[in-house]
Amino acid sequence: MVTEIRVEKVETSKINTVNFEHLPFGKIFTDHMFECDFVNGEWQQPVIKPYGPLQLDPSARVFHYGQAVFEGMKAYKDDNDNILLFRPHENYLRINISSKRLAIPEFPEDYFFEGLKTLLHLEKDWIKKGRGNSLYIRPFAIASEGAISASPAENYKFMIICSPAQSYYEEEVRVLFSEKYSRSADGGVGFAKAAGNYGAQFYPTSLAQKQGFQQIIWTDASTHEYLEEAGTMNIFFRIGDTLITAPSNDRILDGVTRKCVIQLAEDNNMEVEIRRVRVAEIKEAAKNGTLQEIFGSGTAAVINPIAGFGHGGETFELPKLENSYASFFKEKLMDIQYNTGVDDIHGWCYKV
Amino acid sequence: MVTEIRVEKVETSKINTVNFEHLPFGKIFTDHMFECDFVNGEWQQPVIKPYGPLQLDPSARVFHYGQAVFEGMKAYKDDNDNILLFRPHENYLRINISSKRLAIPEFPEDYFFEGLKTLLHLEKDWIKKGRGNSLYIRPFAIASEGAISASPAENYKFMIICSPAQSYYEEEVRVLFSEKYSRSADGGVGFAKAAGNYGAQFYPTSLAQKQGFQQIIWTDASTHEYLEEAGTMNIFFRIGDTLITAPSNDRILDGVTRKCVIQLAEDNNMEVEIRRVRVAEIKEAAKNGTLQEIFGSGTAAVINPIAGFGHGGETFELPKLENSYASFFKEKLMDIQYNTGVDDIHGWCYKV
Ligand SMILES: Cc1ncc(COP(=O)(O)O)c(C=O)c1O
Ligand SMILES: Cc1ncc(COP(=O)(O)O)c(C=O)c1O
Repeated sequence: MVTEIRVEKVETSKINTVNFEHLPFGKIFTDHMFECDFVNGEWQQPVIKPYGPLQLDPSARVFHYGQAVFEGMKAYKDDNDNILLFRPHENYLRINISSKRLAIPEFPEDYFFEGLKTLLHLEKDWIKKGRGNSLYIRPFAIASEGAISASPAENYKFMIICSPAQSYYEEEVRVLFSEKYSRSADGGVGFAKAAGNYGAQFYPTSLAQKQGFQQIIWTDASTHEYLEEAGTMNIFFRIGDTLITAPSNDRILDGVTRKCVIQLAEDNNMEVEIRRVRVAEIKEAAKNGTLQEIFGSGTAAVINPIAGFGHGGETFELPKLENSYASFFKEKLMDIQYNTGVDDIHGWCYKV
Repeated sequence: MVTEIRVEKVETSKINTVNFEHLPFGKIFTDHMFECDFVNGEWQQPVIKPYGPLQLDPSARVFHYGQAVFEGMKAYKDDNDNILLFRPHENYLRINISSKRLAIPEFPEDYFFEGLKTLLHLEKDWIKKGRGNSLYIRPFAIASEGAISASPAENYKFMIICSPAQSYYEEEVRVLFSEKYSRSADGGVGFAKAAGNYGAQFYPTSLAQKQGFQQIIWTDASTHEYLEEAGTMNIFFRIGDTLITAPSNDRILDGVTRKCVIQLAEDNNMEVEIRRVRVAEIKEAAKNGTLQEIFGSGTAAVINPIAGFGHGGETFELPKLENSYASFFKEKLMDIQYNTGVDDIHGWCYKV
């Protein structure tokens, strides 16, 4: 069943007011947004309408109980003006995994894809060509019912908003391995893109920033001996020529980019180990010179090399490599994302 | 410094449309609400205005990252028409403890108390006399800035909304001791009234409800061997004549009612142990007949007796006692809350 999406267009686009050479991340939104309400036990007819404020009762559950989930994905434009997405089905499946854990009704597949396609065609001028340029897409679902009893809401809103993004000059990122604070518990919601997981990281991250680290690598809450993931990236370690990353579990987000890195490593006969990563072994490898790289993987920056890390009062700088795995994976992934003549053997690129 | 609160009154109150004999919890709100914005690094002039919808950008941080905290308190009316609060300073301190953990700017004390007093005087007719009747007060703070970068917002809203509440007929509550799911991690935000802590409980609670349990008693995330607290209540166990409750820590909300119960127990020379409570010892005590009572403590129900519990496929019924500790504490606390001729030796009752 494919649905007709009702479209209400803006009278005049604001695109000419936007400086695409200087885009702050996530502050500027396109002309339209996708909105669909869950009422009377069903997702209603979705609509695309001019981007603008939401009206919600002050007692809406999302304000009080964080019953909210989101996704992050990107659209790219190739040299032939095709609009491309990268493995969007993964994001579709994941938002429903997140929703289920947060007791939010799952969203229908055809609404999601029809909504996305219609919206992206409408906003096609906001997607700029050129490696690094993209349109960041933010699907999200919130509990909108106005009633503060601590139980799942009756009403929800599923929305998609879009923000143009640029490849920005990357600062060097140094990370702190967490020794006290945690991101999630066994049996908790760490594997979900639940809103509350993110707000909870701001304070510990601000403390790390005061110590000169831009981000935290979270460790397991029980012992703080195992490295898990960063705030919005999964984490890879390269010791010698072996790539190591933590297994996904109920504390760690099963990142799309992470899955691609693992697949590309296997495609290229690299040694990959998916296993628990001890803080002690990484420090040991840094000391004996076998630790070559640490990098993060995630939709926002694709691959983010880490320049150094801190733990237990010690700080470590990582070598600056000529042919890093980080840049190898980043180029491979961007070749597929921008459709630049590579063989997309896994069918990751999705033409809208 | 005491601030003048600007008050914008409704033209006509909706109080006559409300059936105070049948109040659903948390769905009906009074005529006015308190609102204060944090912009340009400061809390601005607060205002009390007609209760009504909020307008927020779809990219407001609260929707995406759960940067939000709240409090729950109640106002009572005594036989002389005095409006009374119960230890409101505790709630004031706690919302700032929560805010700090969520990287939300702390709220000034005079704004909080002046706002509360002005609002309650305005809504005095909504507070009905009679034991069990109250006005539930919900202060909360949300990140309102429209921008989806994963970092603390620049702008916030602090609000207070009020909902009339009734002493409702209490169903028997049976609880499930959690074996798989968890509420919070060491080093996490469990001690804060962070919005995301609550939405995360809805799904596991719905699974427990399918098994015939109304609520979950959360156990420690690492081993699930120790009992911590319920979704919106702290938990007490009575073995023989000894009252036992878990110590507050960074996973457990430091409940105001819990503190009062401990104080009242000490005042009345009861044996109280504040220590970790093993699941195994509670099951053992249930089997050998020494487990007398389990009850929850929290602002909503004051004291909530538990009729039975389940764990590891076994279910246990608790004895129905004539002179339970639960009803002893409930009466004592309500005597102070409704100012019914008792000596409020600790000064918990606060006249507005
Ligand atoms: C906690 C967390 N880990 C990892 C990631 C990376 O996932 P993906 O590669 O799917 O963007 C994200 C961002 O989406 C995240 O929020
Ligand atoms: C998680 C949690 N535990 C315990 C309580 C009880 O705290 P208080 O007695 O302060 O209402 C509450 C409710 O406020 C709560 O949300």
